[in-house]
Amino acid sequence: PVAPPVLFFPDPGMPCRAVMNGQQCRRGAKCTYSHQKTSLVKFLDELYAARKTLDVCVFTITCNEIAEAIIAAKKRGVKVRVITDDEQAKCTGSDVYQIASEGIETRTDSDPITHMHHKFAIIDKKTLLNGSFNWTRQAVLGNRENVIIMRNPALCDVFTKEFNAQWKLFEKN
Amino acid sequence: PVAPPVLFFPDPGMPCRAVMNGQQCRRGAKCTYSHQKTSLVKFLDELYAARKTLDVCVFTITCNEIAEAIIAAKKRGVKVRVITDDEQAKCTGSDVYQIASEGIETRTDSDPITHMHHKFAIIDKKTLLNGSFNWTRQAVLGNRENVIIMRNPALCDVFTKEFNAQWKLFEKN
Ligand SMILES: [Zn+2]
Ligand SMILES: [Zn+2]
Repeated sequence: PVAPPVLFFPDPGMPCRAVMNGQQCRRGAKCTYSHQKTSLVKFLDELYAARKTLDVCVFTITCNEIAEAIIAAKKRGVKVRVITDDEQAKCTGSDVYQIASEGIETRTDSDPITHMHHKFAIIDKKTLLNGSFNWTRQAVLGNRENVIIMRNPALCDVFTKEFNAQWKLFEKN
Repeated sequence: PVAPPVLFFPDPGMPCRAVMNGQQCRRGAKCTYSHQKTSLVKFLDELYAARKTLDVCVFTITCNEIAEAIIAAKKRGVKVRVITDDEQAKCTGSDVYQIASEGIETRTDSDPITHMHHKFAIIDKKTLLNGSFNWTRQAVLGNRENVIIMRNPALCDVFTKEFNAQWKLFEKN
């Protein structure tokens, strides 16, 4: 088999908004953001490609660029569901309340000791993003991390079962 | 494509040693360990199957059953290399010093703020274990976690490049 695409972090910098939007940056040397197609840009491309469903199951979400992509999916009519860790959702910088305030259904576990430690997303039932990568600025810019992009509907089914089991388990939290 | 095998945690309990060794437990109701083929047992099966090389690149290693499997690989002649996080290696319960004391080459990053946050292993250049799962008792028994078992030499090559880049980078630490 061929290797699926893999994104490694850390990135050299946060991406310029022009590059994120697939345009040329006009600020030239004044712009201090990265103009490369970084791992974060490729990661965001997957979220912006969602058309029907986006199931996010990630321990920590604090990266604003990623939260914006989740909210943008909701706004264009994608059915979005988010599961995250209860303790992490309360942390400084967490984007979970903002995501919920946009009308996106969001659930958490309810245990301060054990963790909802997954870091996966299922896009349109056909693409799975999975690896060590929490959706945080520290993970983008500081840590050694990986995300494998797997275009495999059968594997998406396996992870959707885990997602749905937690979705039910965390209904009352 | 078919779905590769996926291990989900938490497990219902730590496995009985008889089950880990593929035998029947003779202690009957007195034995308080799990007699199911848990996710940890299936995970350990992969490590015990290593014949030539085992490259471990995992943020935290504190689960004694897993450390034993790494040491057993070394003892049967497998070339074992371990990369882990510097701060985690110093934590209570870390098995990294024990692993190093068995003559297994072990390297860490040297940054107290950023993390070597991967959780992957490459076995015999053909099987990749990757996911959210740190190699800890808390992850086995408490957390929602996943490991995908990917039999894909091309994907192993991609991760071996990342492993070797870090191996060189962390040489002096
Ligand atoms: Zn720019
Ligand atoms: Zn037993």
